[in-house]
Amino acid sequence: MMELLVVGSVALDDLDGPFGRRPDVLGGSASYISVAASFLTHGIHLVGVVGDDFPREHVDYLVGRGVDVAGLERVHGKTFRWRGIYSETLETRQTLDTQLGVFANFRPRLSEAQRDADLVFLGNIDPTLQLEVLEQMRGPRLVACDTMNFWITGKLDELRRVLERVDILLVNDEEARQLSGVHNLVRAADAIRMMGARAVIVKRGDSGALLFHESGVFAAPALPLEDVRDPTGAGDSFAGGFMGCLARAREITPATMRSAMIYGSVLASYCVEDFSLDRFRTLTTLDVAARFRAFHELTHFENLEL
Amino acid sequence: MMELLVVGSVALDDLDGPFGRRPDVLGGSASYISVAASFLTHGIHLVGVVGDDFPREHVDYLVGRGVDVAGLERVHGKTFRWRGIYSETLETRQTLDTQLGVFANFRPRLSEAQRDADLVFLGNIDPTLQLEVLEQMRGPRLVACDTMNFWITGKLDELRRVLERVDILLVNDEEARQLSGVHNLVRAADAIRMMGARAVIVKRGDSGALLFHESGVFAAPALPLEDVRDPTGAGDSFAGGFMGCLARAREITPATMRSAMIYGSVLASYCVEDFSLDRFRTLTTLDVAARFRAFHELTHFENLEL
Repeated sequence: MMELLVVGSVALDDLDGPFGRRPDVLGGSASYISVAASFLTHGIHLVGVVGDDFPREHVDYLVGRGVDVAGLERVHGKTFRWRGIYSETLETRQTLDTQLGVFANFRPRLSEAQRDADLVFLGNIDPTLQLEVLEQMRGPRLVACDTMNFWITGKLDELRRVLERVDILLVNDEEARQLSGVHNLVRAADAIRMMGARAVIVKRGDSGALLFHESGVFAAPALPLEDVRDPTGAGDSFAGGFMGCLARAREITPATMRSAMIYGSVLASYCVEDFSLDRFRTLTTLDVAARFRAFHELTHFENLEL
Repeated sequence: MMELLVVGSVALDDLDGPFGRRPDVLGGSASYISVAASFLTHGIHLVGVVGDDFPREHVDYLVGRGVDVAGLERVHGKTFRWRGIYSETLETRQTLDTQLGVFANFRPRLSEAQRDADLVFLGNIDPTLQLEVLEQMRGPRLVACDTMNFWITGKLDELRRVLERVDILLVNDEEARQLSGVHNLVRAADAIRMMGARAVIVKRGDSGALLFHESGVFAAPALPLEDVRDPTGAGDSFAGGFMGCLARAREITPATMRSAMIYGSVLASYCVEDFSLDRFRTLTTLDVAARFRAFHELTHFENLEL
């Protein structure tokens, strides 16, 4: 196994949509990424911050998943809170409220052990903080990061400095278009790779995800699901499954990147089946393995040559 | 090879979009389907109607592709014309004008030979005409059909009678939702299969296509393309590649259906690279084989087991 450092938000979400409302549930990119990765690997180190209102049971859950929470600071104040409502079809969502709380003053400080991690995932936080994390690392084997429209608009210079130092950028299609200024996804990915990232993963929700890297393109479909209740955290669960697979594989090759795309899709497909991280609470390694095989069944075809 | 009967429109299109305007070009579902299929099989019989304004060169082109045009009636009047304009990103289009012309009185009459075809594809025409075609057939091995929102709204009873008699329905995601009254695509496909179609193919544009049938789900991705000039006919080219593959394979099994989904995607991916059927004019069987391999490369992953 390789050690995986995950830096991002740990939040309390208030989720509303066609399947009901869930106030005060566990959320945040680092929570989803760490827990999703925990189905594939050990040695996951979470770096984030919560306030003194953060329920102990959530910390216990992370610990129970084998996540090292030594880097989860607890400071005086309120935990980051996000409140959103989804449309009837779950295709769009609206942010109703964002309260940064203690996250507003978050400055990731890594321990000696954390600086030696092999793999780093920088969740969707201020690019200035992403850079601060990278400054503290001692030569990781792979750095991946996420970002969003807010930083592309507001902190483009800092984000571009991050991109010069990351191996893989994970974004959704609209973010890829916004960052590159190009609509066509092949050209957008090319443009982003010119900014420094060796590989670009474009997440497309229920249309799957695309990996653009030096050895071409790989398409991971989304598993058509009969029951989707809450899309929150799907992208972060993808990231967690992806990084967890690479950590487990112990080598980063075009082949392991492809399998990692599928494990990312597997974890994302489970994530959306229930609110918050609830589906992960009953998930087993056997379930993950079974759905990996389901993705093979979903995509396999015979070479019927002409 | 199995004999393939294709019934649908043969049209003159006036296409406008970010890559320019092309007035008076060859179009129509039967044209795209027949030509796409011709890269995979022989014995394609086109049934349709054109007016006396239909250029001889288009008929010659179809004949040059090996398509039997004995069923292409030429009657006094104007050929079916469609005029549309695409948005800057090619994601949406607007119909500016539709002139049915001689197509308004089209009544498909099959010859003795045509009634014995093994495979039938009913392009997107009035379900009443689709039923008339089926009445004339003498036990085909497989019937597939397309439809659209216009018929789902206006001729639902007739369409449901068609569905009771077809093996495969090809529709886009919005049509699947409209026909079933269900948003979730898995449930929508289930509901449509309850109406009679043994299999449902949901075309999702640059998100690929899904096959729902008795042995589960298969996802064919779309090939990420750097240059897309005109999406007109992509769905019909998919249908042509799909049917052409089945005709060539000479057996209809879950495995050949999957390969057919990929050949459909291959032909659709070439179609959109140029206006009208122009990309097909220079396309070779070698190109088709090469892109089939590209789809394998696009989707293949190792079974990295837990």
